[in-house]
Amino acid sequence: MLYPFPSACVLLIGNEILSGRTQDVNLAYLAGRLNDAGIRVMESRVVPDIEERIINTVNECRANYHYVFTTGGIGPTHDDITALAVAKAFGRELVRDKKAEALLHAIYKPEDRNEARMKMADIPKGAELIDNPVSTAPGFRVENVYVLAGVPKIMQAMLAGVLPGLQGGAPMLSETVTCDLPEGRIAAALAEVQQRYDDVEIGSYPQIPRDGKFITNLVLRSVDETRLAKASNELRAALTELGSSPHRAVAGAY
Amino acid sequence: MLYPFPSACVLLIGNEILSGRTQDVNLAYLAGRLNDAGIRVMESRVVPDIEERIINTVNECRANYHYVFTTGGIGPTHDDITALAVAKAFGRELVRDKKAEALLHAIYKPEDRNEARMKMADIPKGAELIDNPVSTAPGFRVENVYVLAGVPKIMQAMLAGVLPGLQGGAPMLSETVTCDLPEGRIAAALAEVQQRYDDVEIGSYPQIPRDGKFITNLVLRSVDETRLAKASNELRAALTELGSSPHRAVAGAY
Repeated sequence: MLYPFPSACVLLIGNEILSGRTQDVNLAYLAGRLNDAGIRVMESRVVPDIEERIINTVNECRANYHYVFTTGGIGPTHDDITALAVAKAFGRELVRDKKAEALLHAIYKPEDRNEARMKMADIPKGAELIDNPVSTAPGFRVENVYVLAGVPKIMQAMLAGVLPGLQGGAPMLSETVTCDLPEGRIAAALAEVQQRYDDVEIGSYPQIPRDGKFITNLVLRSVDETRLAKASNELRAALTELGSSPHRAVAGAY
Repeated sequence: MLYPFPSACVLLIGNEILSGRTQDVNLAYLAGRLNDAGIRVMESRVVPDIEERIINTVNECRANYHYVFTTGGIGPTHDDITALAVAKAFGRELVRDKKAEALLHAIYKPEDRNEARMKMADIPKGAELIDNPVSTAPGFRVENVYVLAGVPKIMQAMLAGVLPGLQGGAPMLSETVTCDLPEGRIAAALAEVQQRYDDVEIGSYPQIPRDGKFITNLVLRSVDETRLAKASNELRAALTELGSSPHRAVAGAY
């Protein structure tokens, strides 16, 4: 069942993330940009380079979210199996795309056009190419599944081209209130504000105290600017009441 | 169906990761330490602070992997719902644990023992406490599900206490070979080595070229030290044949 607002799932594909070798940075980036576009990431999954796992996960996620964004596995080597797996997930053939082929021909001299490189022109039948202004080999879209590169700089460039075409809702606005009391001291007051504002999501994120000083970051998020401001005002008043001097960080996009 | 080797799923719980506000670092840490202990992380999921989502995900994952490690949502505030959700996933009551209560009593003076703080002593009935040497409030284990804190330093300290009790297999060994050719030039040779060594997983991770210089990192992983060394030798010979001067990085644990 789809969420009642534009939602997305981010699917990170690659053994290197699950082995701990590579620190993923794509999820946070995608989440931030999609949020700005009024699309909320409601799930993320990381799966290894195993065809069956990718097929099943793509099919589960595309049924549950308006958008699925995958990263990784679209290069020329044997471990790049995303295009084939996505084709199978949709029950489509993997075909050599003429436009993608022409793009690769433009960067590789005839003697450098080996099968591994030309494999990067293979996409599911009927898929639409996603532009890669960094290294040419394109990503692609099949229905609501956007297949992007894993290298962050390339992924980001691909996403930039895709964002204007997405159907977002109201962007989630947010405000961070920083306070110098421990979570346990403010929890009841926080819960009270949260109860009055069920349209404002309030998260509490403590830092480990340094020199006995507490820092708790309270993040308020809502699509309604007025309600967000009111909740923030009430929260800061409640914290002041408890003896804190809460700071209001500059309102950010997420 | 369980994998034929000790496997794990890492479940990150928290809106802040899905909004892009917080860059997760727990997955890579957990993956590295578990790998060292002979347990392979074969999936990771990130879910928001929504009870039903946590319940369903915990139940799916604990059926598919030998171990599930969750991070986040065990503090004193209203958005900390992991303990209750995990209790519901197991069909168990959430009960105030006497030992956990005593731990909290030891750090909070009677006048500071409010309901929010004492909530951190509530765990699923029959669960086993996980020691928290950083900030006292414990994590817990129910069957194969390990519930850890979200703050990295606390999570890491909890994991350290848990690791010796886990049943791992042979640790995955790895070697990184760095080469100065683009992926497209070496893909065929790579695939050949991979075909001869189906017990060695070979991943190819390109960097974006700088000043026209290519760097491709090839990561070989296997539980068999001899096979790993042989595959690495053959790979480096094949790369040298192609005109590269491959470097062998110091063998790492993952």
